[in-house]
Parts: sequence; structure tokens; C-alpha cells
Amino acid sequence: MAESNEQVVRNKQVVLKKYVNVGLPKESDMEIRESSIQLKVPEGCKDSVLLKNLYLSCDPYMRSRMKKLETPSYVDSFQTGSPMNGYGVGKVVDSTHPDYKKGDLVWGFTGWEEYTITAPFLLFKIEHTDVPLTYYTGLLGMPGMTAYAGFFEVCKPKKGEYVYVSAASGAVGQLVGQFAKLLGCYVVGSAGSKEKVELLTNKLGFDAAFNYKEEQDLDAALKRYFPEGIDIYFENVGGKMLDAVLLNMRIHGRIAVCGMISQYNNERPDPVHNLMYIVGKRIRMEGFIVSDFYHLYPKFLELVIPSLKEGKITYVEDTAEGLESAPAALLGLFTGRNVGKQLVVISHD
Amino acid sequence: MAESNEQVVRNKQVVLKKYVNVGLPKESDMEIRESSIQLKVPEGCKDSVLLKNLYLSCDPYMRSRMKKLETPSYVDSFQTGSPMNGYGVGKVVDSTHPDYKKGDLVWGFTGWEEYTITAPFLLFKIEHTDVPLTYYTGLLGMPGMTAYAGFFEVCKPKKGEYVYVSAASGAVGQLVGQFAKLLGCYVVGSAGSKEKVELLTNKLGFDAAFNYKEEQDLDAALKRYFPEGIDIYFENVGGKMLDAVLLNMRIHGRIAVCGMISQYNNERPDPVHNLMYIVGKRIRMEGFIVSDFYHLYPKFLELVIPSLKEGKITYVEDTAEGLESAPAALLGLFTGRNVGKQLVVISHD
Repeated sequence: MAESNEQVVRNKQVVLKKYVNVGLPKESDMEIRESSIQLKVPEGCKDSVLLKNLYLSCDPYMRSRMKKLETPSYVDSFQTGSPMNGYGVGKVVDSTHPDYKKGDLVWGFTGWEEYTITAPFLLFKIEHTDVPLTYYTGLLGMPGMTAYAGFFEVCKPKKGEYVYVSAASGAVGQLVGQFAKLLGCYVVGSAGSKEKVELLTNKLGFDAAFNYKEEQDLDAALKRYFPEGIDIYFENVGGKMLDAVLLNMRIHGRIAVCGMISQYNNERPDPVHNLMYIVGKRIRMEGFIVSDFYHLYPKFLELVIPSLKEGKITYVEDTAEGLESAPAALLGLFTGRNVGKQLVVISHD
Repeated sequence: MAESNEQVVRNKQVVLKKYVNVGLPKESDMEIRESSIQLKVPEGCKDSVLLKNLYLSCDPYMRSRMKKLETPSYVDSFQTGSPMNGYGVGKVVDSTHPDYKKGDLVWGFTGWEEYTITAPFLLFKIEHTDVPLTYYTGLLGMPGMTAYAGFFEVCKPKKGEYVYVSAASGAVGQLVGQFAKLLGCYVVGSAGSKEKVELLTNKLGFDAAFNYKEEQDLDAALKRYFPEGIDIYFENVGGKMLDAVLLNMRIHGRIAVCGMISQYNNERPDPVHNLMYIVGKRIRMEGFIVSDFYHLYPKFLELVIPSLKEGKITYVEDTAEGLESAPAALLGLFTGRNVGKQLVVISHD
């Protein structure tokens, strides 16, 4: 006789149908599939949890997982025909893991589906619940840690320095700018619409912002906003913007390379010509990935939770409702449709 | 009545006739001019020295000084119509500077001429004279310090790491490779001729070496020599080589950007496409210039002088005789004519 916690429920999933190596993926490259799941960690599955997924995080790095990667990268390709996965927020429904019990809230790696059984991998227990839970897909989750690690650990900023952030209204960029302001830097951001540019200056506290799509000459735009040059560039886009930035860096400038979203759909990346400036200006350009820095998560929360409660940090989210909206929400990142952190609500409890 | 140390002597000089912004300069862009000089620091010139120049150093960075630089760089343009200048070795003939006296041997910044009057700028007194004095244009001078600072301070190498050096038989590259071997790294170098490649493995102790001009596919060549990938790339050439290296770097690899000699004569630098790899591989790419590290010169000598005397380090020089040969010797750097450190002998005493 089945116990109540063994009930079988529907489990909708987002599945990648085929790899898309070049160009902008389409919604039809993914599909919504209905499956079912027993609400219990299966017999013999040790150290596992069954999560009810509440919020999914749409992140640019997922684009490379939609490709059939020939050479190993820091992320694996998705499995076609299986549910996609990524960061999200969930609630523990059942657990055979000693550290997790029913009712625990967690954020971290989970499936793009309603319920996921997983051996906890990159799963963090949520201790602070007096803040919006959705923030654990952004401000208090992977993108927040990315901004923190990239800005403080990689850029090693100093008060008064000139900081430039591209994709500045995005999940990571909006925080880099706010961290820089907290430290006492001068911060300019760029984004791809009037609405986003207004957000940066009116809501997020950037000193200035511009719409890169309206600039004929990115070098000239940067010279206008940084007549003294740029000490720190937080790189989210790559390509032509990087080339223009290299012309405008100051001596001993630092470029933290978080991502290059302008390049992810290209068959061949855009050329960069101005690397010679790295020598004379003694520029340090350094790539990083957030998983190298998760040991700093407690230290990060010590900074961010009080700043958030005191209103010194704010966060802009773009919310899509329902698992069905996940494919479009993900793809919107690559056309800049999202305003702020893009997340998908699967369930509110 | 003139005293003996006020005698007037001939002073031959190398003069840049006109700026050469693009393309390979020609010998006729420079000229040898005969001037004369009184062998005494002029009345009223405080804190100055009059040097008899013995050896001149030909260095790749001098190419950019032959251009009319629109934006300020870490080096100035040469003055057309005036003697060129650069690193060299000289003997003090007269001095009004308290730290220098007649007969002192020095290396550092001086004129491309037989005698130079200068307020000591980047001038180091030579304390060790039981080594070839010409070495102060290379091994024991600016190129030596460049190799030392770039390898130890910028790359932060560890024993057992895989190190790749381009332009490896040059003034800097040959030392980087030897430093890496002293530390216990695996070192491969590339150069542009059979003779240079043989030098690298037979005389300079590199584990392997290849002629980049004979490789159709630089990526394939690097994969052959570094099946496990590259931890440290000491960048001297730029362009296509850098693009191929980025494909072959290991996680947490470091690229010290010392120069990009393949690019100096180009109107527009060659494109680099593979910067995306900086993110996933967490590569640190960092430019440096030696003058930021001269405070380490005593520490550098502590390593190099004993290693040299014990035969653990050797040094290959390419010597041109006479000031008249200086223009051709300098330009030879850009066609790879020199084998080892290129210097010009003005006088042996």
C-alpha cells in the first residue's frame, strides 16, 4: 500500500531537442514534456534529495551548453532528449541525505522541471528567508557571487577608481555597479535600451550610463564618459566593445572577463585588434568562473544581506510565469529582451 | 688654455631622419652624422655625466619609438634629426654627479652615439666586471631583468609546469627558458630558423623547440609539443601565435605579455579570435614593462651572477661592429636576422 509521500504527480520538463552550435536558438529547439514522478527518493538512492523547484534562473552561460562541445569546457553540453538543468531555488520534498530534511529551502543546481531528484551538487541551504526568495536566483545566488568574486577578488578595486560595466543592467552587471558605488568608485554602465539606461542611473545608482546601440563609435563614447580612462572593466560582452575598451584603459588597469555574450551565437568570434595595449598599459585581463569562489559565500552574505536590508543595494528582476515560458525567457537573454535578472517562476510554494 | 679633459673629439651619431609609422623601416630612414663634443660636462650642468658609449643594445620596443605616436605610450617617439637613444653600456669620462666618477662603468639609458652627456636616467653602476661587459646589454641588463620580472613576478611559475616561449632565442626568450629549466619546468620554445631551433635545444637547454615558419597549423604544432596543454606562455610575438596558444592553455594558465614583435610593422594589428577561452580556462593575461621592476635588480643579480659563473646559465649574443652597423642591426630584429641578443660594439674600452 502506497504511503502518502509516495504519491505520483505530473512532472513537466524543459527538454533540449537538438544541439544548436551556431546562431540564435529558437524556442522550437526546446520542448515541454510531461512526465510523472513519485514524490519519494527511490529505494537505494543514498545521499539524495527530491526537490520541488520554485524558481529557475536563466543565465547566459547556458548558451554554450546548447552546443555539442567538441572539447571539454568548464560546463558540459546538455543531454538532448533529457531535461535541461541550471541554477534554481527549490524546496526539499524528501531526502536521504543527512544534511537535508523535508521543508528545507535550497538554491543551486537543479533540473528545468517541476521536481528533481539529485545528489546535492552545488546546493546551498537558504538561511535567510526574510528577503524575496527569488533573489536566490540572482542577487543572493550565482549571479550575485559572480559579481562579488569578479569585482572584489579579480579586479581588486580601490576607492575612487573609474569602473566600466557592460551589460550593466543584467543579473551580474547591476550588482557590480552597486558594489563599485559602495566602495566609492566612479561607475558607468552600458546597456541596450533607453529603459535599461534609465534604470542604471535612476534606480541602480550608476554615475552615468549609455545605450551602446546608439553609439556609432564606441571609442568616442568611452572617451566621453571616461576622459581620464578606465581603471576597471567588468567584461560581459566581448568583441567590438572589448576592442574599444582596450584603447581607453589606464595604466595598471584590470579587465575581469566574466563572459562575452555578444559572441555566443557567432560561428567565429569577432576579432579583437587592440591587445598590444596590454603591454604599455600593463593591463591585467583575467577570466574567472564563480564556482572557484563559492567558499566566499558566507563572507558575501555578510556584505549583501545588511546592505539589502538597509536599502543600500537594490535588485531588478524580470519574471516569467510558468515552466512553459522558460525557453522564451532563456532565449530573450541573447536579444536583450530581459530587463534585469531573468527568472522563471514554476511555483510560489 | 684648454685642459686635457676638455679636448674636442669627433662624435658619430645615429639619427632618425623621418618617422616610419607603418611597414618595415629601411636603413635609409636613419643616417650616421658626424658631430663633435668637448670631453667635459659643460659648465653649469649639475648632476650630469659624460659617457663614452661602448655597447649599444638593439631592442624590439625601439620600433614604436620610430613612429610618430599620436597618443602617449610608455615610451616616447624618437626626435627626428637628433641622435636616437636606448639601452647601452658606457664608461664615465667626466661627471658633475656625486654618485658617478671618471672611470665608472655603467649600463642604462644612453645615446646612439660615441659620447653622451646625460642626467643619469635609468643608469646602473656595474659592480661585477669579471663577466663579459657586453652582457650588460642583455643577460645582465634590461632584457635579463625583463625575463626575470616577466617569468617570476608576472607568471608566478611552479616547478613542473609546462612553459612555452615564443621568440625563444631572442635576448629575453633565451633567458626565460633557462629560468624555467632552473625552476624545474618543462620548456618548449619557438623560433624562426633551423639554426635558432638547434640553439634552443643544444645550447640553451630547452626540452624541445620548433621553427614556427615550418608549421602550417600552429594549433597542431602546440598540441604536439604540449599534449597536456600550456600553463605559462611567455608572449613575445602576438597575432596568430597568440590565437593558437589560447586554444592550448590549461586551466589557471598565465600569459605574460612582454611584446608582440609580429605586429610592430603592421598598419592594423592581426585579429585575435580566441579570447573567449580566457573565461572557462580562467586565464590571466598580463602585460608588463621592465621599468616597473628595477627595484628587484639586486635580487636578480643574486640569482644570475652565481648561475652564470657556475655555468648553469649561458647567453647567446649577436654582435655588430661599429656605430655604422647600428641601423642594420636594429632593423634585423624585425626580419629575425639576429641570432641571440643583438648588440652593437662602438668601442671596446
